[in-house]
Amino acid sequence: MRVVIIGAGAAGLTLASNIRENDEKTEIIIFTQSEDIAYSPCAIPLVLGGCIESFDDIIMHDADYYLDKNIQIHLSTTVTGVDSSSKKITFEKDSNSESMTYDKLVIAAGSELIAPEFEIDDMDNIFSLTNISDGRIIQESIKDKKEIVFISNLSIGIESAYELARKGYDVTFLEQSFGILPLFLDGEISQKLVELNEGVDFETNADVTSITTNGSKKEIHYNDKTISADVVILPSNKVPSTSLAKQAGCEIGDFGAVVINEYLETSVEDIYAIGDCVEVKSHITGTPTLSPAGTTAVRQAMVLANNLLGNKLTFDPVVNTVVSKVGDYNYACSGITESFAEMIGMPVVSVCIETCQKARYYPQNNKLCIKMICKDDGTVVGCQMLSDGDLSSRIDALSFIITDNMKCEELIQKEFSYTPSLAMVVNPIVQAALAIRKKMQ
Amino acid sequence: MRVVIIGAGAAGLTLASNIRENDEKTEIIIFTQSEDIAYSPCAIPLVLGGCIESFDDIIMHDADYYLDKNIQIHLSTTVTGVDSSSKKITFEKDSNSESMTYDKLVIAAGSELIAPEFEIDDMDNIFSLTNISDGRIIQESIKDKKEIVFISNLSIGIESAYELARKGYDVTFLEQSFGILPLFLDGEISQKLVELNEGVDFETNADVTSITTNGSKKEIHYNDKTISADVVILPSNKVPSTSLAKQAGCEIGDFGAVVINEYLETSVEDIYAIGDCVEVKSHITGTPTLSPAGTTAVRQAMVLANNLLGNKLTFDPVVNTVVSKVGDYNYACSGITESFAEMIGMPVVSVCIETCQKARYYPQNNKLCIKMICKDDGTVVGCQMLSDGDLSSRIDALSFIITDNMKCEELIQKEFSYTPSLAMVVNPIVQAALAIRKKMQ
Repeated sequence: MRVVIIGAGAAGLTLASNIRENDEKTEIIIFTQSEDIAYSPCAIPLVLGGCIESFDDIIMHDADYYLDKNIQIHLSTTVTGVDSSSKKITFEKDSNSESMTYDKLVIAAGSELIAPEFEIDDMDNIFSLTNISDGRIIQESIKDKKEIVFISNLSIGIESAYELARKGYDVTFLEQSFGILPLFLDGEISQKLVELNEGVDFETNADVTSITTNGSKKEIHYNDKTISADVVILPSNKVPSTSLAKQAGCEIGDFGAVVINEYLETSVEDIYAIGDCVEVKSHITGTPTLSPAGTTAVRQAMVLANNLLGNKLTFDPVVNTVVSKVGDYNYACSGITESFAEMIGMPVVSVCIETCQKARYYPQNNKLCIKMICKDDGTVVGCQMLSDGDLSSRIDALSFIITDNMKCEELIQKEFSYTPSLAMVVNPIVQAALAIRKKMQ
Repeated sequence: MRVVIIGAGAAGLTLASNIRENDEKTEIIIFTQSEDIAYSPCAIPLVLGGCIESFDDIIMHDADYYLDKNIQIHLSTTVTGVDSSSKKITFEKDSNSESMTYDKLVIAAGSELIAPEFEIDDMDNIFSLTNISDGRIIQESIKDKKEIVFISNLSIGIESAYELARKGYDVTFLEQSFGILPLFLDGEISQKLVELNEGVDFETNADVTSITTNGSKKEIHYNDKTISADVVILPSNKVPSTSLAKQAGCEIGDFGAVVINEYLETSVEDIYAIGDCVEVKSHITGTPTLSPAGTTAVRQAMVLANNLLGNKLTFDPVVNTVVSKVGDYNYACSGITESFAEMIGMPVVSVCIETCQKARYYPQNNKLCIKMICKDDGTVVGCQMLSDGDLSSRIDALSFIITDNMKCEELIQKEFSYTPSLAMVVNPIVQAALAIRKKMQ
């Protein structure tokens, strides 16, 4: 069996490794337009900030590593066509065009940046920040600069803004929405995150209309105001990459992403799709949504590897569980926001409480802010947390609670661990659940 | 309604507070033999080690705080009798005996220390370490001393041993079993915990036969050897306190603890029991077990408060989820150990893997060792972890996995959060589950 994979991101590479781990015979061939593979874009801020020394350090493997495992990777190669009737793809490298047949085709093409809606007179010192190559260019370009303006970026941009501020740059962040990460965080939480952190000048509801050049400076015009900067980082708005899927005849959904079933099959036989280019089902609403996260890509890849080898697993609906380190604080979220619930007309009850991570009397006490959102029957549908302590595993517990449709009353019975130097005897999650229950009575 | 509570530990006080929070009228009266209330015994090691300044700091509230909430606490008072037919208790303070009727009686009497089996010629400089009063005495007594020997203690003693070693004491720990915390940790994990940590001399399988006095020194005789010390801390073996429950006619189970049903009712009408003095049901085996933990006591108290106020909840079977900080390392566990599975003849598959907490390339990388135990159908029944990073929320996720009877194959589909500075893209729990799955194939 020959499996052809388009894309060498978290989805494509994890799929290849997981197939090979369980099967020696399958022929695995990957195509990618990129030169760099096997790195986590989420680590880019850490290199820009200097916490990790070089971009080379975040590259886990090169193409030879995969070749040793009998996985062929065609770097810097563009797949130009898919013919699903003859089960053949065409691809181009260095202006040479070739074709190849497949038994199973996996589209893991990721997403692509969309151009900003405002005008830019000259792209000099204006960059996007989505991949390692962007990171390298920015790292080089800001060496002799001082003022950096970010416009409406997601996690990687927000984290980078604070990392660069910590390094001594003057950083301004112009957010076009009511708050940062509006899909993840309600206004009260995103505002608190910005207030608690120092070093970056934040402006929300910033309607950027143009960027013009004045000598060596860039002038960003918004809300009848103008600020200048040496370097501008453009918004990181992305859409799923679907041109090849369309060409192959795959159904595309309302979000502009490839439609797949629970086995990760597209509407075309022997073509599968995973990663940022597909739509998934929301666990909360049961309707299609996007989940452009490395963890979703990896999970889909592991499920698909099983399916291609005949051990049929399903990919379950998502709750989009996220954690991120922004300046000196971490935020984490899972499920839906209250704003989203309002938008879709779902009646919810929410609480937002300030509590601790450890025993109240513990001297290195970490503050914790937790917002919990429940349907009117008490089912937990969302949670957002903010803290100067680690939130990663804490939000994982919430991810399980939301996936299991637990009600806040049931949380009283759930077993959490306790020791004063690490935890509270009544877990903050239970404290929030009790507060919701009281509010509902 | 008058609720009389015997015991002012985590169980009794949490019950009282939770009743009062939801009901103003119920008369709540607590009896305790102790002078100190509302502190966490788990914090004693932190005071002995100096991380928390004084024992007063770990006392959250005094009796007046409760009186303000209209909760009466009789300190230093011994309940001497229970007559369940006339629903009356008798109690004694300062040699005065009185009686009081109850509508509902809650026995939250805790547990009591049992005397060691070896001989001791003189109790001078020999102490137990289970409550704040022990802590105060030890803190005072070791001021001008150097050598301390602990014999077979549980978490509080083990944590204290390392805290005192950090403070400069010469500390030896003689463990009578094959490893520390044999009910929580398998030998390979407890051994690793001891090997990784520095500062305490450990000996396992130490069969202590006697402690004798030689001038100002104590000599501890075990396995044909003798070591001397200035101070000895005795084993912390405890049994449930059941004398009043027995007197009231309550059924006592095979573990010597009060038998309760899922509503926390004893076999005698209008008498309930919670906390260390009761037996609970194990989620894994379905059979009775003990769960002498503050978290269990608090959970039982919250459930019972609901039940006494007519909002009937059940107390679910336990998995005994634990976290503890020992020296520079933390361990955490949930479910059963492999040794216990062997003992009860349950066929299991286990793996023990060394991995990371954060991305592999992250410079402040925390190592993580995780042992996972599954039944032969893949259901996760136990987990033990060891790390220099926080394990509290990480074991909570495991607690949910075990309580929900998840199989290791299902864990592939579970959503965990990820960012390189806090987590791995494939969560260690999933890594362990994949390793078990491979071993089972």
